[in-house]
Amino acid sequence: MTVKQLGLPELVDACAELGVRNVGTWREPVQAYGVDKAAALLRDAGLTVTTHCRGGFLTALDPAERTAALDDNKRAVDEAVTLGTDVLVLVSGGLPAGSYDLAGARERIADGIAVLAPYAAERGVRLAIEPLHPMYAADRCVVSTLAQALDIAERFPADQVGVCVDTYHIWWDDQAPAQLARAGAQGRIATFQLADWTTPLPEGVLNGRGQLGDGAIDLRYWRGLVEQQGYTGPIEVELFNDGLWARDGREVLAETVERFTRHAVRQ
Amino acid sequence: MTVKQLGLPELVDACAELGVRNVGTWREPVQAYGVDKAAALLRDAGLTVTTHCRGGFLTALDPAERTAALDDNKRAVDEAVTLGTDVLVLVSGGLPAGSYDLAGARERIADGIAVLAPYAAERGVRLAIEPLHPMYAADRCVVSTLAQALDIAERFPADQVGVCVDTYHIWWDDQAPAQLARAGAQGRIATFQLADWTTPLPEGVLNGRGQLGDGAIDLRYWRGLVEQQGYTGPIEVELFNDGLWARDGREVLAETVERFTRHAVRQ
Repeated sequence: MTVKQLGLPELVDACAELGVRNVGTWREPVQAYGVDKAAALLRDAGLTVTTHCRGGFLTALDPAERTAALDDNKRAVDEAVTLGTDVLVLVSGGLPAGSYDLAGARERIADGIAVLAPYAAERGVRLAIEPLHPMYAADRCVVSTLAQALDIAERFPADQVGVCVDTYHIWWDDQAPAQLARAGAQGRIATFQLADWTTPLPEGVLNGRGQLGDGAIDLRYWRGLVEQQGYTGPIEVELFNDGLWARDGREVLAETVERFTRHAVRQ
Repeated sequence: MTVKQLGLPELVDACAELGVRNVGTWREPVQAYGVDKAAALLRDAGLTVTTHCRGGFLTALDPAERTAALDDNKRAVDEAVTLGTDVLVLVSGGLPAGSYDLAGARERIADGIAVLAPYAAERGVRLAIEPLHPMYAADRCVVSTLAQALDIAERFPADQVGVCVDTYHIWWDDQAPAQLARAGAQGRIATFQLADWTTPLPEGVLNGRGQLGDGAIDLRYWRGLVEQQGYTGPIEVELFNDGLWARDGREVLAETVERFTRHAVRQ
């Protein structure tokens, strides 16, 4: 998504050029290209898919909507299998219209995961609950902290359900270091994502994630904390940013590689 | 600020018309009108000033900036005295440019309050630390949760430093009910403010606070929690909202009174 202006074949070329060997996929562009075709393209280029984003949206009250969401999540698991990744990231969903019940919505997420986790595990895919910044609590994700994500994840075996740690969502939280230790002790850090926090936030607050090094987040500090917990997996850079999307995608990818090296690699 | 389109004399008239007997003041319009003149106007109309907003912005690293901030806060205390209110709300300040150090910024806030709290107490004014929503952590307020606000407030006598509880900033936080109990047990709830959470958030995320009843927050629930903790003070409605400001101020005030009755009064 950082370079969503690139089609998948262009992305593959740009990755080859820059020595990028791993890529996180997003459902919509993969579906648009064709899941099997995308999987073959990435595999033939020697690219490893780190995670597939995103399942989730499990908070509906309406039974038909809940069934549709579960079916869609099973498709997302199947896509992950085809792409050869073992992690499906979940963005859990916001409050249904007219509801005030954050705790109830979180319970419905747990109920949904109870159905999905065994389905995914049978196929070698682990679910990663992603806490989103509290500014998304109403309309996108009622799971706002690592603590809440772990409260749900802990109901399931660690090899079936982990958490997705994204600096953009947790950087403000003074409880996050302790929760990373909790996640690490249980082996639940399923993936680690970087984005920086820049202001002012844009309307809708979705597409203003900062390029690494442009914002308020000490990326190297958070990487250190995550790796102290034994995490040795890939580090994803996930920037939803209208400004970056308006630029040449190869240039943005090259800049991102350079920023990663400058701001997130131990010195 | 809910009806900042009204000048102070118009506000006084509108309050009289609607039976509103209490008003929270904001520094800029009071200063523009003249502090003594504003105090006389409100007093003569029989209006009680609930709180004065806002001091704070105590996170600067530069010594000259820090001194200027402390001086400005003392002026804010003096204004509160003139207006006849005993609460000055503090918006603590964001990260200085280029700093990643949220914890250090919070320590500087505590250092500033150590200077200001006795100054205010001598004048009968209590400081109210307001946690702001985590989306403001970088550029406006590094105090993002009630827990953090209380961690600072607890270093001072409860009659000198309390907290400002605003539904807009804490509604997402599953730790907030326990922290309200902590605040209540210490007698530190200095004021209670209502605003609703509506989406999409506007650019800059400052002026999108929802009219009561329009959003995701169970206002009656939060009022109940605050009052369970023994709070019997005024309830302020603080809506920063470009849409409301573009309308007729008397109409907005009347609507706000009606919404308060409908959504925040026990039934």
